[in-house]
Amino acid sequence: MESTANLPTATLLVSCPDQRGLVAKIANFIYANGGNIISADHHTDVAANFFLTRVEWQLANFNLPREIIQAAFGAIAQDWSADISLHFSDDIPRLAIWVSKQDHCLLDLLWRWRSQEFRAEIPVIISNHPDLQSIADQFGIDFHYLPINAENKAAQQDRQLELLLEYKIDLVILAKYMQILGAKIVDKFDSRRIINIHHSFLPAFVGAQPYHKAYERGVKIIGATGHYVTADLDAGPIIEQDVVRITHRHGIPDLIRKGKDLERMVLARAVRLHLQNRVLVYGNKTVIFD
Amino acid sequence: MESTANLPTATLLVSCPDQRGLVAKIANFIYANGGNIISADHHTDVAANFFLTRVEWQLANFNLPREIIQAAFGAIAQDWSADISLHFSDDIPRLAIWVSKQDHCLLDLLWRWRSQEFRAEIPVIISNHPDLQSIADQFGIDFHYLPINAENKAAQQDRQLELLLEYKIDLVILAKYMQILGAKIVDKFDSRRIINIHHSFLPAFVGAQPYHKAYERGVKIIGATGHYVTADLDAGPIIEQDVVRITHRHGIPDLIRKGKDLERMVLARAVRLHLQNRVLVYGNKTVIFD
Amino acid sequence: MESTANLPTATLLVSCPDQRGLVAKIANFIYANGGNIISADHHTDVAANFFLTRVEWQLANFNLPREIIQAAFGAIAQDWSADISLHFSDDIPRLAIWVSKQDHCLLDLLWRWRSQEFRAEIPVIISNHPDLQSIADQFGIDFHYLPINAENKAAQQDRQLELLLEYKIDLVILAKYMQILGAKIVDKFDSRRIINIHHSFLPAFVGAQPYHKAYERGVKIIGATGHYVTADLDAGPIIEQDVVRITHRHGIPDLIRKGKDLERMVLARAVRLHLQNRVLVYGNKTVIFD
Amino acid sequence: MESTANLPTATLLVSCPDQRGLVAKIANFIYANGGNIISADHHTDVAANFFLTRVEWQLANFNLPREIIQAAFGAIAQDWSADISLHFSDDIPRLAIWVSKQDHCLLDLLWRWRSQEFRAEIPVIISNHPDLQSIADQFGIDFHYLPINAENKAAQQDRQLELLLEYKIDLVILAKYMQILGAKIVDKFDSRRIINIHHSFLPAFVGAQPYHKAYERGVKIIGATGHYVTADLDAGPIIEQDVVRITHRHGIPDLIRKGKDLERMVLARAVRLHLQNRVLVYGNKTVIFD
Repeated sequence: MESTANLPTATLLVSCPDQRGLVAKIANFIYANGGNIISADHHTDVAANFFLTRVEWQLANFNLPREIIQAAFGAIAQDWSADISLHFSDDIPRLAIWVSKQDHCLLDLLWRWRSQEFRAEIPVIISNHPDLQSIADQFGIDFHYLPINAENKAAQQDRQLELLLEYKIDLVILAKYMQILGAKIVDKFDSRRIINIHHSFLPAFVGAQPYHKAYERGVKIIGATGHYVTADLDAGPIIEQDVVRITHRHGIPDLIRKGKDLERMVLARAVRLHLQNRVLVYGNKTVIFD
Repeated sequence: MESTANLPTATLLVSCPDQRGLVAKIANFIYANGGNIISADHHTDVAANFFLTRVEWQLANFNLPREIIQAAFGAIAQDWSADISLHFSDDIPRLAIWVSKQDHCLLDLLWRWRSQEFRAEIPVIISNHPDLQSIADQFGIDFHYLPINAENKAAQQDRQLELLLEYKIDLVILAKYMQILGAKIVDKFDSRRIINIHHSFLPAFVGAQPYHKAYERGVKIIGATGHYVTADLDAGPIIEQDVVRITHRHGIPDLIRKGKDLERMVLARAVRLHLQNRVLVYGNKTVIFD
Repeated sequence: MESTANLPTATLLVSCPDQRGLVAKIANFIYANGGNIISADHHTDVAANFFLTRVEWQLANFNLPREIIQAAFGAIAQDWSADISLHFSDDIPRLAIWVSKQDHCLLDLLWRWRSQEFRAEIPVIISNHPDLQSIADQFGIDFHYLPINAENKAAQQDRQLELLLEYKIDLVILAKYMQILGAKIVDKFDSRRIINIHHSFLPAFVGAQPYHKAYERGVKIIGATGHYVTADLDAGPIIEQDVVRITHRHGIPDLIRKGKDLERMVLARAVRLHLQNRVLVYGNKTVIFD
Repeated sequence: MESTANLPTATLLVSCPDQRGLVAKIANFIYANGGNIISADHHTDVAANFFLTRVEWQLANFNLPREIIQAAFGAIAQDWSADISLHFSDDIPRLAIWVSKQDHCLLDLLWRWRSQEFRAEIPVIISNHPDLQSIADQFGIDFHYLPINAENKAAQQDRQLELLLEYKIDLVILAKYMQILGAKIVDKFDSRRIINIHHSFLPAFVGAQPYHKAYERGVKIIGATGHYVTADLDAGPIIEQDVVRITHRHGIPDLIRKGKDLERMVLARAVRLHLQNRVLVYGNKTVIFD
């Protein structure tokens, strides 16, 4: 999972209908240009006849300048009907974290960021409540308090979108935002760039108060799900899930407490996978190359 | 979890509205009559003001003859509005296993039974397909083939009920029966005496083809659920659940294969808990004293 | 697991050789004095003929004043050769956290403490390195930097013991202290009041660099262990353990990163269990009444 | 993980010091000869500068006849100092299962085999006790009873080796054989072709009676390990491990009972991974391409 830490690498993600020779053509492109592959992972969905790959190679001694790699590879793949993306490990992605009143996911992400578990910049935190301003201050991050009500909803969505542009945000993380994201945002800002943490094992307990519902149903295990956000509530492609056992001795406050630990672990893993370009969305599903 | 294996014990299950002194009164009843408690577990649902307990004691040197214990305790508990049941470890419960075509849960149960993981008699296997007759023969168990179709459904339900009476069945185990149980059976035969294994992490993927649905939804974890059967499909009180991780590399056949292992583990645990009188149903939930 | 949050309760822990009537006598003591039991859990080790129990009851309307409960119960139990301890939920225990350079366990504990997952006071942090002073400052906790070397070792142990007395510490938490605790401290300060987190699945990989050893051995799962500290390195009674899967793709830095999450979860659970008086030590083992 | 079930495939495993172009050269070899890659997985151990890969492709329309593929590829890889092996999915491997008195792992393997979870032939079961003869009979498998004592040990080892040759065995599975395998067998029969199930989470509790040792140590989790057998007891490369939680309520018989479930799951997974040629041994570790 680890690259040799300091040397810059390129990561190429390709998804397209399967055909003979794809692995060879991609590997040749890199080899022929002097690249040293440090990680290559492929998946073929045989039923759907669909191919997905992630290849990472060291840029040192690679013949092609960065700015023409995508075009050069595009020429090779022009007949593949491929979805292609290219990332450089020293391009640092910019994150916006959206929160409400709960601090556990926010703090956990910020700790990991400061410990360099994530390579990213976090210029802005957006919230519909003022409560977590002091955490933003402590980490030196801008904090925008945008309260939402029935009247200002549309206007605030516009403001939110503006902020994403202003701060040149690559990834939005809903770290217990507890609001349904405005349709306009999902629409305008690529939904594959918005990650949410839902406090249940989806598709069980969609929507509000999943711990209360889990308690009512008497389940023996609760979960959390990190997923991309789409227009349908809690229905986007799942990136990561995890669970923990509970018993009849656990009341709703215990479920909430245990759930917090799940939420922060699962969200952190989903964000890390995304930032390392290890997630390919495919239909409403994900392929995780970890 | 282990009793001293060979000495007979009594197990008393009590559930009732909470009040001061219940633990003391129950413990006194046993102590005053010379019983030695080997296991006592209580649960108070503070919100619902409800008390549930399981107490097990050695019958050796107990002053009261078995046949009057329930009445004697009933006298003490007469004002408690309690649900009381009493079990003796040397009363061997009689099981009927219902199957369809798949053998993995059946074989697993029979192997555990023969290995004395379960203390029970298994006089009959009932199926809507003839396929597993040979397994019944091998273990010396009666096999009744009762095919079901639209016309004979009601008549076969009557026949099923007759068999439960004929064989004096205490517990029905639906070991991948793959049919919705007739309402009449759920109605006439206490639903707390019918255990089903559902091949999903309930309440996700209720009903048919949960592995196909899980595959479609792109979940990262699949599960299985052992539960009591009620009139509502897959909605009865949950006894046990477990899960296993999957990835994009796992197609539907892999989910089915991995699910089989989950199903037999979870069903076996649910059955064992029931047979050891460790499950108290309470509303639509269970308290598991293990 | 939850008490009715605000009403004070008493918790009685008793361990002694088993005999008939213990459950009844303890329950009677509480009932006869007007106490309402909200949680009672017992364990009999049949092989060792040993009995352990934890009983918690509401103090409201309890007839005995707090200061005589222990003596009054002691009179009843005088012939039991029992180890007895009594705790009141509104007596707030005082913790000292010992750290070295790593902040993840410290931050996690402090966050849980501020979120009221732990009911405790944390007046002091002790470290052999100055690095985490700013965290102590941020939470308003005294920080004592006591560097250790071959010459000052004995003197610093004395200073550490003094601090424990000065701050009236009830529980020491070694939150990645990374030093072997001085024998004098283990000796003078009850070892059942010192909790350590070891970054392996004990008894595998005792001592230094367990992640390096795990990597070398090629294990497929790594773990962490929360345990009481005894004179023998990493050999004290285990309170809690957990594990996480790894693959060949994970290098030592990945093991360390994944291990950090395990360490903070496991340590937090061990501390919480201790603070709720749910841990009874018994030989070199623990009984956990959760 | 699934191949298109019925079409024959070739699987090539290569391990060698890393160098530029390996992925490209391997993929080209297959593509240039008309092969359609259905699965390709690579791993580079950056620290050790070592490369390992598993590539599987459909043989339909592959230009090279099977019998010359290895030589043809060998020509390409002649300067790589590579360890190369080639497998065809319709070459059915032949297994010998070695048992003692316990039946759970044996039965589990045989069930899976009959359900076609494993593609293999199982012509022989070898045991130092006669107890499981009837299971062998039931599945139509030869059973050889070779009792071992101090006098006949060397002679029986020779007989065991003879049987492996006679039955043309590709893989030996020690399914609770409970004996240390003779050094001669480990020596003469490739140790990468002998899989053992050890009933602990290695390296904890090496050797005899791991459940007793786990009980004594008071661990909160027990495990099982599937590994290749080497001359050092329980020290061979680990293929698969899993764990299950226990509590103070579980005595040694419970650990044994719960452990049985772990043992059969872990052994079955290890065997399946081996049979699908997904395990590469590397030093004393494994790379698992699943």
